[in-house]
Amino acid sequence: MTTHSADTPGYTLLGRVNTPADLRQLPVRELPHLAVEMRRHLIETLGRIGGHFAANLGTVELSIALHHAFDTPHDRLVWDVGHQAYPHKMLTGRRARLESIRKLGGLMPFCHRGESEYDAFGVGHSSTSISAAAGMAAAARVKAEQRRVVAIIGDGGMTGGMAYEAMNHAGHLGLDLLVVYNDNDMSISENVGALRNHSARIAAKLGFPTPHREAEGCENAMHLADRPGALFETLGFAYHGPIDGHDLDALLGAFEQLKDAKGPQFLHIITTKGKGFEPAEGDPIKYHGVTQFDPVTGAFPGKKPGSKQTYTQVFGDWLCETAARDPKLVAITPAMREGSGLVEYSQKFAERYFDCGIAEQHAVTLAAGLACEGLKPVCAIYSTFLQRGYDQLIHDVAIQNLPVLFAIDRGGLVGADGATHHGVFDLSFLRCIPNLVVMAPSDENELRRQLATGLAHAGPSAVRYPRATVQGVEVDVIAKPLPLGKGRVVRETHGRRRPRVAFLAFGAMVQTALEAAEILDATVADMRFVKPLDVELILDLAQENDLLVTLEENARLGGAGSGVNEVLAAHHQPLSVLNLGLPDHFVEHGTREELLAQIGLDAAGVLRAVQKRLRGKEFDARESALPRQA
Amino acid sequence: MTTHSADTPGYTLLGRVNTPADLRQLPVRELPHLAVEMRRHLIETLGRIGGHFAANLGTVELSIALHHAFDTPHDRLVWDVGHQAYPHKMLTGRRARLESIRKLGGLMPFCHRGESEYDAFGVGHSSTSISAAAGMAAAARVKAEQRRVVAIIGDGGMTGGMAYEAMNHAGHLGLDLLVVYNDNDMSISENVGALRNHSARIAAKLGFPTPHREAEGCENAMHLADRPGALFETLGFAYHGPIDGHDLDALLGAFEQLKDAKGPQFLHIITTKGKGFEPAEGDPIKYHGVTQFDPVTGAFPGKKPGSKQTYTQVFGDWLCETAARDPKLVAITPAMREGSGLVEYSQKFAERYFDCGIAEQHAVTLAAGLACEGLKPVCAIYSTFLQRGYDQLIHDVAIQNLPVLFAIDRGGLVGADGATHHGVFDLSFLRCIPNLVVMAPSDENELRRQLATGLAHAGPSAVRYPRATVQGVEVDVIAKPLPLGKGRVVRETHGRRRPRVAFLAFGAMVQTALEAAEILDATVADMRFVKPLDVELILDLAQENDLLVTLEENARLGGAGSGVNEVLAAHHQPLSVLNLGLPDHFVEHGTREELLAQIGLDAAGVLRAVQKRLRGKEFDARESALPRQA
Repeated sequence: MTTHSADTPGYTLLGRVNTPADLRQLPVRELPHLAVEMRRHLIETLGRIGGHFAANLGTVELSIALHHAFDTPHDRLVWDVGHQAYPHKMLTGRRARLESIRKLGGLMPFCHRGESEYDAFGVGHSSTSISAAAGMAAAARVKAEQRRVVAIIGDGGMTGGMAYEAMNHAGHLGLDLLVVYNDNDMSISENVGALRNHSARIAAKLGFPTPHREAEGCENAMHLADRPGALFETLGFAYHGPIDGHDLDALLGAFEQLKDAKGPQFLHIITTKGKGFEPAEGDPIKYHGVTQFDPVTGAFPGKKPGSKQTYTQVFGDWLCETAARDPKLVAITPAMREGSGLVEYSQKFAERYFDCGIAEQHAVTLAAGLACEGLKPVCAIYSTFLQRGYDQLIHDVAIQNLPVLFAIDRGGLVGADGATHHGVFDLSFLRCIPNLVVMAPSDENELRRQLATGLAHAGPSAVRYPRATVQGVEVDVIAKPLPLGKGRVVRETHGRRRPRVAFLAFGAMVQTALEAAEILDATVADMRFVKPLDVELILDLAQENDLLVTLEENARLGGAGSGVNEVLAAHHQPLSVLNLGLPDHFVEHGTREELLAQIGLDAAGVLRAVQKRLRGKEFDARESALPRQA
Repeated sequence: MTTHSADTPGYTLLGRVNTPADLRQLPVRELPHLAVEMRRHLIETLGRIGGHFAANLGTVELSIALHHAFDTPHDRLVWDVGHQAYPHKMLTGRRARLESIRKLGGLMPFCHRGESEYDAFGVGHSSTSISAAAGMAAAARVKAEQRRVVAIIGDGGMTGGMAYEAMNHAGHLGLDLLVVYNDNDMSISENVGALRNHSARIAAKLGFPTPHREAEGCENAMHLADRPGALFETLGFAYHGPIDGHDLDALLGAFEQLKDAKGPQFLHIITTKGKGFEPAEGDPIKYHGVTQFDPVTGAFPGKKPGSKQTYTQVFGDWLCETAARDPKLVAITPAMREGSGLVEYSQKFAERYFDCGIAEQHAVTLAAGLACEGLKPVCAIYSTFLQRGYDQLIHDVAIQNLPVLFAIDRGGLVGADGATHHGVFDLSFLRCIPNLVVMAPSDENELRRQLATGLAHAGPSAVRYPRATVQGVEVDVIAKPLPLGKGRVVRETHGRRRPRVAFLAFGAMVQTALEAAEILDATVADMRFVKPLDVELILDLAQENDLLVTLEENARLGGAGSGVNEVLAAHHQPLSVLNLGLPDHFVEHGTREELLAQIGLDAAGVLRAVQKRLRGKEFDARESALPRQA
């Protein structure tokens, strides 16, 4: 199988279209052919490099039609999430760099204002586009500027409450704003929600056949099937459609009609996720985000033999085992079944499985409601998305001291998704919350033990683990709860060399500390608990060592290491501490390993930092020998 | 004017109804009379003590009907927010203690699981009730229990996106759940949003006259006025109503019909905020939350002559002054016009004023969209509600480094609203965010300077100020920006006494530090910036003093003082620090002064803590004389 670049003869149009201005030179009759070439380029490129895939095949015609009909970048396009914006990137001068997307130093994974003037708003998390576009439309009104603003949001994004908040407000203000509702009946998994069921009925009735459009749920909305836009009209939008989002003539006609319409306009288009690539149309979940695949057959390279499990999988297995024993266990996910390792659980325990849609606020408070009734909710959520449920965690779970266990995946650097998705603030924003127990496992056995600890705990708890493969240690057959707030020393120093250094490491960084400790002959503590901290262990280590090094994959500011400082200060320990963690700037994308090395949080970087600190300070034996004060 | 207790002859029914069981003994024909007595009791009690008022006059009949029709506490009532739950409290054994509500040690300001088995869910923040009730209904399904669940939510609460998330999910699951939509066409201010306009048209058409029901906004929804429930039906709920929420027969009839209905039910009732008390019906905003008033005339006692402004008012004045000079300034509030001091601004600069409804997520991202277009958004938000916009602050504002100024009111303890409303985590959850400048003013002149600093700053910033009156200092005619990240020493020690103590105080605590410093003859620094911290000042103070005391009205864990520790650790300062701030438990309600004293954050408490620390440790001159390391 040969691959083609856009400049090979196979691409007669694509090579000529580098900007929207080029695109607008093309006669409309040539646009479908451009779509064919763009799709082929996407399939070939992403087959080679992997990345977000299926959603982009669904937006090829839409991207062409938008840039053809609107005067970008003067007119603003706001793509929700942005994992479907690759065709938009291709049409706005970034086709040649598409190969670099999601790689260190390469194109941004989503839209990004710093990357292109055509990216009106930076995205990554779902459901923000209508709010941002409403702000731009309101600004145009305040400044009396002629400017069209378009938000493009999927049916998955529409399950997020802030999309509704934004429509309710934009409808109230009567803003000149077009919302394109890209309805492919999919989130990353199948989309859920009553609105989705309603839309599926409409689509089915109008003869849009897709593989996932069975109408489900209760019958209340049935008689509304002839009023597809009722919800959006109630929110003050003029509803148009649905139309076929792969029909360029239909799209161009609609945009021509709507682009200068006054007041909030809502265009419902129906697309197929994975369009034009049969394997992806048939299984859009599998092809949502991909590793390399064969651009003809869609086949993925076989898994390497002996490849390790991920923390996510270990969590999923633990959940199934535990649910089999404990009928009170229920699990909640905000639309992250696959990513959170819940596929098997959702099949085996369907009646105790709740996929809330992209609705983190609701997911957390739903868990609180379940806990009130004596069930044991496990809320599986990515660290970065828990930011969306922060108030609910404080207000509905922690204040009421309810036993909800948060299984926080993607804690730390997540790699290719970049700055919007790194889970590097959670230890800072969680440890200030009273009643909450916060844990971070150093290996898969610890993950299982900490999950068991959280589940057994009478109040709220969180276990935060990385997007990584596990260490491959032996695991307890049945994971038992750990003693609350107690860490453990996992490496003792062997010699009597001064200065003596001890690592106080959290979560995945315990392994890094162990590597660095081999060179330094340092002590390593696996702290296990970010909250409550093991005060006794901290003070013991402070007594015995000349330098304490805290190490975590979280913002240094306010993180777990900062908690160690607080303990030392409270106990009058004149402290010599080096706090290592993420620097105070946003880290971009790359592999997790590349990024950790870049910011000095790999073993080599940690070693450098400790050695620099040791060189910078003459040690005084008196300092470490001061008696501890009561 | 005499006041009556519920046991005086004036109350023939109220004295007999202490529990829902008592209530269910009453013949239905007596219930209207009970409502009259309850309303009188509310007016008299709240006239005497103040508190949330007008909303409670609107829910008297609803509360009676719910407890009459449902088998509480086995059936669950979840009141959204809970400021309208006083009649519910009166009917569930708490009437005699109503006088104590919102006072130290008294009844909780909102519903609270620890207070009564009839309070199925603790509330305070808006829009959580449907999620919590959905969790309870789902639990009943998992456990195969017969249990009815009712969420009662206002039209203000319905502007919050999580209510929509919850309905979309509950509709999908087909849960047996009743949502009572208490539509009084008011939030704290007039309610906003397209849904509100739609409801107002329906109500007007059906002949429900209230003072605030002019239909506004664009015309898209006009033709839907005959389909009042379309939005809710699309979300999978069976829509019923609207009915008169003050008509007991209508309410009881509806509950009889709906209480055992299968699937999600939605009952729209129309009520009048302030019902039965003419002054409050006429001006429900003024009577939302009240100080003491005359229970006959509604008159409030005159403002004491010479009473000081609040920080809120100073912010509002600054905003108006600045907007008059700067046409790029725009202001955003999530439904807190009065509370945030925006009344005058909203009148003078209506076209640059955005009330988003109770929609913090949208409010923050709307501000980001406005900033993208070159405007200068000031997002006025309470600290506790910013928790709702946390992800948007990180993802939409800080990552994009957009110049949005957050005017964070109610930072610190808020007093009578209690644990759900204290703004005591913001310094912890904000200072870990890259790009963000965080300030806290020590007096009103500093507030104005810091607001000017934020507005002039090219990136995101936050100024966090307390719910308090100001110091009464002289203010600069035009507030000028401060140098970024520089604090100032506001009191120098006079003597040579050892140990030498320096306070590093943040925001309102600077005044407290000054008081304590008089006794201790300590140095006091007004740090001004929580982020970036003034490293030079910190290191200077560490050199010159034996003990540094950090002082803030924020959680001690991860707070500003923790940032000071980090600086000292990073600069190899063997440190003797005492971090004072809020303890690691939720603080309940009372006046701010009572609560500060209770947790030892008044001047006396601070003095005690410092003296204890000084006694607990023999000072060693060497310790403070150690050379600073590079």
